[in-house]
Amino acid sequence: MDFSSFLTSLGTSFVIFVVLMLIFTWLSRKPGNHVVYYPNRIIKGMDPYEGTRLTRNPFTWIKEAISSTEVDVIRHSGVDAAVYFVYLSTVLGILVLSGVILLPVLLPVAYTAEKKIAANETTSEGTFNELDKLSMGHIAQKSHRLWAFVVATYWVSFVTYYLLWRAYKHVSSMRAEALMSSEVKNEQFAVLVRDIPPLQNGQTRNEQVDSYFKAIYPDSYYKSMIITDNKVPNKIFSELEGYRKKLARSEAIYAGSKGTANPEGTRPTTKTGFMGLVGNQVDAIEYYDEKIRELVPKLESEQKIAMKDKQQSAAVIFFNNRVTAASAAQCLHDTMVDKWTAMEAPEARQLLWTNLSKNFYERLIRQYLVYFIVFLTIFFYMIPIGLISALTTLDNLKKLLPFLKPVLDQATVRTILGAYLPQIALIVFLALLPSFLLFLSKAEGIPSLSHAERAASGKYFYFSVLNVFIGVTVGHTLFDSLKTIEKNPDSVFNVLAASLPGSATFFLTFVALKFFVGYGLELSRIIPLIIYHLKKKYLCKTEDEVKAAWAPGDLKYGTRFPNDMLILTIVLCYSVIAPIILLFGVLYFGLGWLILRNQVLKVYVPAYETYGRMWPHMYNRIAASLLLYQATMLGYFGAKEFIYTPVLIPLPILTLVFIYLCTMKYYRFFQTTALDVACRELKDTPNMEGVLRSYLARSLSAEKGTDDFQFVNDLVHVSIVASMV
Amino acid sequence: MDFSSFLTSLGTSFVIFVVLMLIFTWLSRKPGNHVVYYPNRIIKGMDPYEGTRLTRNPFTWIKEAISSTEVDVIRHSGVDAAVYFVYLSTVLGILVLSGVILLPVLLPVAYTAEKKIAANETTSEGTFNELDKLSMGHIAQKSHRLWAFVVATYWVSFVTYYLLWRAYKHVSSMRAEALMSSEVKNEQFAVLVRDIPPLQNGQTRNEQVDSYFKAIYPDSYYKSMIITDNKVPNKIFSELEGYRKKLARSEAIYAGSKGTANPEGTRPTTKTGFMGLVGNQVDAIEYYDEKIRELVPKLESEQKIAMKDKQQSAAVIFFNNRVTAASAAQCLHDTMVDKWTAMEAPEARQLLWTNLSKNFYERLIRQYLVYFIVFLTIFFYMIPIGLISALTTLDNLKKLLPFLKPVLDQATVRTILGAYLPQIALIVFLALLPSFLLFLSKAEGIPSLSHAERAASGKYFYFSVLNVFIGVTVGHTLFDSLKTIEKNPDSVFNVLAASLPGSATFFLTFVALKFFVGYGLELSRIIPLIIYHLKKKYLCKTEDEVKAAWAPGDLKYGTRFPNDMLILTIVLCYSVIAPIILLFGVLYFGLGWLILRNQVLKVYVPAYETYGRMWPHMYNRIAASLLLYQATMLGYFGAKEFIYTPVLIPLPILTLVFIYLCTMKYYRFFQTTALDVACRELKDTPNMEGVLRSYLARSLSAEKGTDDFQFVNDLVHVSIVASMV
Repeated sequence: MDFSSFLTSLGTSFVIFVVLMLIFTWLSRKPGNHVVYYPNRIIKGMDPYEGTRLTRNPFTWIKEAISSTEVDVIRHSGVDAAVYFVYLSTVLGILVLSGVILLPVLLPVAYTAEKKIAANETTSEGTFNELDKLSMGHIAQKSHRLWAFVVATYWVSFVTYYLLWRAYKHVSSMRAEALMSSEVKNEQFAVLVRDIPPLQNGQTRNEQVDSYFKAIYPDSYYKSMIITDNKVPNKIFSELEGYRKKLARSEAIYAGSKGTANPEGTRPTTKTGFMGLVGNQVDAIEYYDEKIRELVPKLESEQKIAMKDKQQSAAVIFFNNRVTAASAAQCLHDTMVDKWTAMEAPEARQLLWTNLSKNFYERLIRQYLVYFIVFLTIFFYMIPIGLISALTTLDNLKKLLPFLKPVLDQATVRTILGAYLPQIALIVFLALLPSFLLFLSKAEGIPSLSHAERAASGKYFYFSVLNVFIGVTVGHTLFDSLKTIEKNPDSVFNVLAASLPGSATFFLTFVALKFFVGYGLELSRIIPLIIYHLKKKYLCKTEDEVKAAWAPGDLKYGTRFPNDMLILTIVLCYSVIAPIILLFGVLYFGLGWLILRNQVLKVYVPAYETYGRMWPHMYNRIAASLLLYQATMLGYFGAKEFIYTPVLIPLPILTLVFIYLCTMKYYRFFQTTALDVACRELKDTPNMEGVLRSYLARSLSAEKGTDDFQFVNDLVHVSIVASMV
Repeated sequence: MDFSSFLTSLGTSFVIFVVLMLIFTWLSRKPGNHVVYYPNRIIKGMDPYEGTRLTRNPFTWIKEAISSTEVDVIRHSGVDAAVYFVYLSTVLGILVLSGVILLPVLLPVAYTAEKKIAANETTSEGTFNELDKLSMGHIAQKSHRLWAFVVATYWVSFVTYYLLWRAYKHVSSMRAEALMSSEVKNEQFAVLVRDIPPLQNGQTRNEQVDSYFKAIYPDSYYKSMIITDNKVPNKIFSELEGYRKKLARSEAIYAGSKGTANPEGTRPTTKTGFMGLVGNQVDAIEYYDEKIRELVPKLESEQKIAMKDKQQSAAVIFFNNRVTAASAAQCLHDTMVDKWTAMEAPEARQLLWTNLSKNFYERLIRQYLVYFIVFLTIFFYMIPIGLISALTTLDNLKKLLPFLKPVLDQATVRTILGAYLPQIALIVFLALLPSFLLFLSKAEGIPSLSHAERAASGKYFYFSVLNVFIGVTVGHTLFDSLKTIEKNPDSVFNVLAASLPGSATFFLTFVALKFFVGYGLELSRIIPLIIYHLKKKYLCKTEDEVKAAWAPGDLKYGTRFPNDMLILTIVLCYSVIAPIILLFGVLYFGLGWLILRNQVLKVYVPAYETYGRMWPHMYNRIAASLLLYQATMLGYFGAKEFIYTPVLIPLPILTLVFIYLCTMKYYRFFQTTALDVACRELKDTPNMEGVLRSYLARSLSAEKGTDDFQFVNDLVHVSIVASMV
């Protein structure tokens, strides 16, 4: 990529960003769009403009975002969102503090060096632009100026240590604060128990669980809820829900058709066959009504069957105080680890019901199988990505597809394609992956959605770093100069280090595209807006359907975060080699912080709350990026034949010690709840019946009055516990 | 070593063994020796011959040992001793089951092979004796007969897996049984808490600890006992004890001197200076009496100072039920792992008092420092041991010390020296080490003696295997043929494999010496017997002194076990290469089982009880030996140029999976107490005051009546707990 296509790319991205900003300013004021731009507030029953005047100033949202506090974020989107902002601001801090020293020091040192850069070492593939003079490539081998870069390498590392340590401490106290809350949170009274041993001599599952836990916790055990296999009731329930929706829709159509022209209205019809497309034509309202009447008793009988005969080897156990629940989740109950395994119950809304009854060894085997599949995925994608990145240089395209030559020879096409083609290929490619990885993570037998998303996000991170960063960088070099590498088959870090300068402008454009176009789209919500209006106009007939059309979803940090990490890894690894990338990094994380702050306060609604359990993952991955950066720098200084390179060896060791200490000190509290936190006073005595009811599967509790006590007793064996509320 | 010196060595060992057995039979019947041969029974107030008739049959003890059950062992010497027997019988089982297949199959296969053995491959250093024909060395390279040895390698491994799995299960249930006991065991009601944060605003340590734990465990918290710095009272207390002993002794001497000849008696005198050797001559009884009168008030005031002003950041916390104590020991209390760290309280008698107040990071640093020192120890001893083993072949001795030539040329001297010199050097060498390693382990900051002994035993194991086994084997080869190794610098396993045959007879004699002489000395207790009689005759004046003279001590499995493991490692590694070693192994562990069974039932008195916490270490080390064996076999088959060697590759992987599964399933229960076990009914309500009192340091509780309630209150802040007994 030459310098002009680099500038074109930057310019185009910026123009797109400005246009999207203008669109946002214009559209977000129209009251008809408020459900797209302020759904979080609307769902909470707040006024979209609460707390601010609707001025004509298009930058109000920026002021609001900046002035909002962590407490606001927690109130609107929970602790998890606040932790994500700790992540963003920590990374931003690292990049800013690094930049403050690195830019004014390294750029002059590099620029004033007197070396003629060799063609294969430039960041511009031989076009010798000004950017090259600002990079470490401009320093001669063995030069004493490299000392400045050594110091810079240390500086970046120490800044990272300091800010990471502070952030871990901060998140830990934030988590403690949230868990200490005097509000009754149902999941704090529950423990998920799996691997319950087989029943013996005529005991029921309920008796078994009750007698086991009552012996251990005579005073605090409340009741248990056995996990059941709900496949059949679930299916009937969703059919039932479907018919109800269709009924409501038909009634709305019928009501809508009663115009002045047709005061009787037209009764809608449907066909009884597949998807309402084939079969007999019938009156829709009557047909759905009848179907619902048929299914309700069927569901009820299936509910009973599930509760009685399909009990699994897992249960949710309820305690009447938080300390016992927190302590039970940490303790070994049976002498064998593979029996009566207890863990903190996830929130009811994020339980992965079908995974709960998978037994210990099945989970273990599934886990390793999934790891193996992920390993294969990561390393087989290497090949296509490498090919794509190598093929999509223009010259290669012309060579491979000569019929495209006349098109590619036009200057504008050349510039635009040269600027975007590789990046777009990469982004599309990556978009396919997250759902596959989430599917795999769920298949591991993980009991909660949040945990599965964390697991998927981890896999995605390793995928991105290995494939996109290392893959593109090394793939590039491999294609360019297979011979050179063959001659000195060094370690992977050396190859990586040698390949880095060649890919610098690629990654600069990649980062710029991500933040200008990515965050522009994020803020303007063009796509959700169009979808919402289309749906509203052509599909939605009932109030519920309209609501579903604008439902904002959650922040999806499961995929958002690995993408951020990829950027951070790239920026860190280039930070000393081509410090100019720090500017791009600061822009990415700064814009990200600003725009997502707006989205979190006004748009997204969290799907679950884990009280910051994502943090240790974030921490680990930042630390992993730091390690990669340090290893790369070792390789790069080696390639510069700098004889004092070994002064960098303490760095990765220091990082490992740092990771060890941090993890040891802070991590355990993210796995379990500290008793000191759980023992804080509650505002009200918990309503245990309500706590328990919140864990009933919807398909089992449907069609029951909310105070049908007999029903709950069917499901949950009543234990007469002295302390029962 | 040639064949005749091998036979001489075996013969001599056997003769010594027979002599020691006869001595035992003869001496153990004399009633005056009963305190040496039956101390365990005598201390328990039992008749030495309880349950047996004193017949003239010298093999009664064998019958008794064989017919004793595990329950007997637990009753006489606790669960730890029983676990040691599980270890012995598991290893015995492995060797017997291996031998049953390997000896009848491999010996004929090897013997009938038609290969002429090369001089450097024999087990006899070129003397071509019959033993060589029974080893794998007799099989030609690439021979198909090697398949039999491959199968044998698998057989030994699978036998080990099976028996280890069974043993782990058995020990686990034994531990559970013991912990479920309906007897009140003080330590089951206590939790050791360390890293208590610094005091704030005028709180006392007692208030701090009480308020912290009462908030978390309002119903089950009883009281706490703050750990104090007892250096001064300890010193005064031991001085006091010393003077008391001396007083008793002087009084006994005085009473003894009142014979018919001298009805008044002679009052003994002493000198007031250093060790009673210099200074003024004074009347001993009066002098000691005065000293005691001086020290008692001094001790009391120092006790008060220690209790008030020298409280440390650690405490023993008492709960009024076992479940809460077991659960508290497993839970995270503070959000930071380095504060309020809780663990199961060790028995009071095995607390390493001075280690309790060491803080989290000090412990961490000490631990790694000790690991580093141990690492240095292991690798610097390599050099001397290698030299000893290389130098002590006769030919080398003659070359290096030519003036010894006339002596060494005599046939008998040659034979005996050749047979014993290297082994004796080795055994003496190893005897110096255990106390150093125990010292190091205590310096790690470990809170209990049993844990420190386990840690020392682990270090000793790695030392033995690395230095004695690998060191001797490889050292031997290194000295013999440094050139050969230089030519093909393979992995350590290949070197080891190549060196094994050359050391086979060395190790055969080593094992035989260990079991014949070692166990002969063990059973006959010649040395304790002589020391006891000498002391009794010349030193002991009072009843207490006599008791101290025959105090049997405990089994000391901390050093016994690593020695056994060394033998097991040697036997396993040679099991397929020279199956004849299995006979020696079976003899070692069979004799060991028999003789130690006798000692455990009649002699040794356990110093502490850990309910089998040693087992996971035993398990891990057997598994480690198995891994070493499999790696060695891989190397050895490789050296035989057997092209199907890779069929052995699954074995070490299988072992790793096996270790992983076993450890995951069983290990956690050995770290903590399962709640299901802790919740069993107790026979009596525990006397909490007594439980607490059992943890008082002797130097603090001395000079107080046992029911001085006020005193306990000084020490332990009284908490008015509703459920107080």
